[in-house]
Amino acid sequence: MERDESRISIDPLGSPESVAAELSGLHPVDVADALSRAGIDGELLTKILGELDTEIAAEVIINLDEHTLGDILDVLDPPEIAEIASELESDDAADVVGLLDEDKKAHVLSQLDSDDRKAVLDLLQYTDESAGGIMASELVYVNSDASVDDAIALIRAAADEVEEIHNVYITDRERKLAGVLPLGTLLLARKGTRVAEIMEEDVVSVSAEMDQEDVANVFMKYDLVAIPVVDGEGMLVGRITVDDIMDVIRDEAEEDITLMAGTRDEEIHEDSTLRVSWIRLPWLVIGALGGLASASVMSLYSFSFEKVLALAFFIPVITAMGGNVGLQTSTIIVRGMHADGGFESDVGSRLRREWRIAITNAVLLGIAVFLIVGLWLKDWVLATIVGGALGTVILVAATLGTIMPFTLRRLGVDPAVAQGPFVTTLNDVIGILIYLGLATLFLDMLS
Amino acid sequence: MERDESRISIDPLGSPESVAAELSGLHPVDVADALSRAGIDGELLTKILGELDTEIAAEVIINLDEHTLGDILDVLDPPEIAEIASELESDDAADVVGLLDEDKKAHVLSQLDSDDRKAVLDLLQYTDESAGGIMASELVYVNSDASVDDAIALIRAAADEVEEIHNVYITDRERKLAGVLPLGTLLLARKGTRVAEIMEEDVVSVSAEMDQEDVANVFMKYDLVAIPVVDGEGMLVGRITVDDIMDVIRDEAEEDITLMAGTRDEEIHEDSTLRVSWIRLPWLVIGALGGLASASVMSLYSFSFEKVLALAFFIPVITAMGGNVGLQTSTIIVRGMHADGGFESDVGSRLRREWRIAITNAVLLGIAVFLIVGLWLKDWVLATIVGGALGTVILVAATLGTIMPFTLRRLGVDPAVAQGPFVTTLNDVIGILIYLGLATLFLDMLS
Repeated sequence: MERDESRISIDPLGSPESVAAELSGLHPVDVADALSRAGIDGELLTKILGELDTEIAAEVIINLDEHTLGDILDVLDPPEIAEIASELESDDAADVVGLLDEDKKAHVLSQLDSDDRKAVLDLLQYTDESAGGIMASELVYVNSDASVDDAIALIRAAADEVEEIHNVYITDRERKLAGVLPLGTLLLARKGTRVAEIMEEDVVSVSAEMDQEDVANVFMKYDLVAIPVVDGEGMLVGRITVDDIMDVIRDEAEEDITLMAGTRDEEIHEDSTLRVSWIRLPWLVIGALGGLASASVMSLYSFSFEKVLALAFFIPVITAMGGNVGLQTSTIIVRGMHADGGFESDVGSRLRREWRIAITNAVLLGIAVFLIVGLWLKDWVLATIVGGALGTVILVAATLGTIMPFTLRRLGVDPAVAQGPFVTTLNDVIGILIYLGLATLFLDMLS
Repeated sequence: MERDESRISIDPLGSPESVAAELSGLHPVDVADALSRAGIDGELLTKILGELDTEIAAEVIINLDEHTLGDILDVLDPPEIAEIASELESDDAADVVGLLDEDKKAHVLSQLDSDDRKAVLDLLQYTDESAGGIMASELVYVNSDASVDDAIALIRAAADEVEEIHNVYITDRERKLAGVLPLGTLLLARKGTRVAEIMEEDVVSVSAEMDQEDVANVFMKYDLVAIPVVDGEGMLVGRITVDDIMDVIRDEAEEDITLMAGTRDEEIHEDSTLRVSWIRLPWLVIGALGGLASASVMSLYSFSFEKVLALAFFIPVITAMGGNVGLQTSTIIVRGMHADGGFESDVGSRLRREWRIAITNAVLLGIAVFLIVGLWLKDWVLATIVGGALGTVILVAATLGTIMPFTLRRLGVDPAVAQGPFVTTLNDVIGILIYLGLATLFLDMLS
């Protein structure tokens, strides 16, 4: 079955029983999808889920969008949430429990059996964006003196609880990671073989504190489907599977896009106009304040405009150029920092590279604009000022665009902020200062 | 071993033998990484690779960055390339062969054995960004009347050739996909069981023509590690593994980022100043032309400026606001179109949503700017014009930002283009027209 565009829609006015019947037999992901987009309230959603088998309901719940999940968790009482959580893998259970307020969280935890409670509490202590925050505690591991038969028996015992088993991890007596045995190797191994003989000793692992973006880079670099997570002492504490990493890769890239654009992905599913407006306003306020700063700079040069009004016409060329060059430069620096296999060179060598490019573009565009303005207004002094200022602004914007990401990174701020409105606005103001400063120097020569 | 930040550097002046010795024992990905960043020429690289075992050299080669790979392919002669290609999975072999010029390509193909040649030629006919373009032909499939022992025997036979086996696919007599058997199920199955009894019949597949971004959405939706690819008749033609999908997810997101910023990721590793300059110039030219269009609009309103010079000061506020609002709006529309589980609603309903947000922000910012300008210049007519124009520009930019992505998609153009410089520039010009038009209407009232 090709399931590319298949989308099920459900009748928001149907009874819970009829809707559940309609959804039966579908993949839980498709059920979650249909429920997320149905736009029905938490009460009805909960009743529909109640009609489903608990195991399937749990699968549906972790695939709902966060908004819909929140609506359901508001309606369900703690014993019901605990029942669902105990059906989930520990990482999903921790995600669900992490969405609850403190009271409800404590109540749900008290309802879990002690193993599940310990697993969820252990996972909740890691920050959301670390390896610990996205790992699951469930995994299959055997001692290095075990046989392949022992390993297979363990897989059989764990098959219910561990969702996707790709590897069996091999540990020493202290639960320190010693090797890995992919299922394929296990399948082809002779009965009775000791795992230590056939395991891969060269196993790539990550520490629980590692940032999820770095974990994703490790996955992409080594083409992994799962990775073991170890604590500070090298003890095996969990594993991360590639399905969670696909989300990380997409989310991290989208974080950059939305930082650049001045809004956040969360708003796609946000219905409240005021809340969306509130998300977008800070960027607009920065832009407005920058614009007003430009206005006050221009007011200082009123005497220049009074002499040569045409000076004002070229302000938009200057600001557009500063903004575009700044964004091109900072984007390439930030992409290079993120990319696995990208550069990690010093500011100096990047600056020299960006200057070479900026000088080329400054000369080409400066001359082009000089010619256009000169031919248009037949004022070659003004043309020289506009062309010269344009070239200078390109150089300055390239410099800022290079230095800002490095500076932000050193300050512990996401360098992608340099692609946002703050730097563009700064470039606007600086560009206008350069242009009007230059114009005022040559004011006497202007006709 | 935790391999997060490990980076090996090699001595560019070493002999090929000493460098190869230095690299021996490393993971091929790390060798590729070290060679890609060493900055040494194709001749020396080729000699180093010649010192490595062919199988390892092949692994290294597919992990080099495209730039370094190109340098090596220039130096190697067709029989050497064919030898390497025959060690690779068909998708990687097709990628390597696809990089060659027509003459060399034909020569390399003639050196491959007929099976490899057929596989590579089959894959080369699909476009780069389709499921067919990223799939490999190597996979393990059995007829539905086979037993698990037959399946295991096939895996054993294929273990050398197929890199990562996650599933055995089950087909009918006409090679039509009938089911899937994950390795875990196979491992736990009783000897002699027929695969048809234990296979999952509900197998998610994609067609060879599907766009790679849609394939990635299917992977993310169903949390897959591999997917079978079928042709128009439902016959199994290949499979895609998640390692290639991780690259797709990252590349598609980065494509959007670089479209927004007006440059391309390729330039990160590009050394030629002129070529980088050439990549960036089109965006800058659009910005410059837009700026000059703004200048000519402003020159039409010279009489207004001559009467009230202060009108010119607020041009940057107007253009900054139009640019920011347009980018916020188009970004959310484009993200929503891309996102799995995002909206696919009509222009009308999105427009109503964006207008509600835009009206809120227009009122808030319009009033704020009205007050600031009024208190600053003590000219409440000018303050009304600036505040009113600002509000109008926000509404217009939100409208354009919503309509453009839908229009571009209908025209078959990537909607992300709406986040690029063209729309920002258009917003600049329209914003200035609105502002100066409004100002001219009320010119007599201005002091």
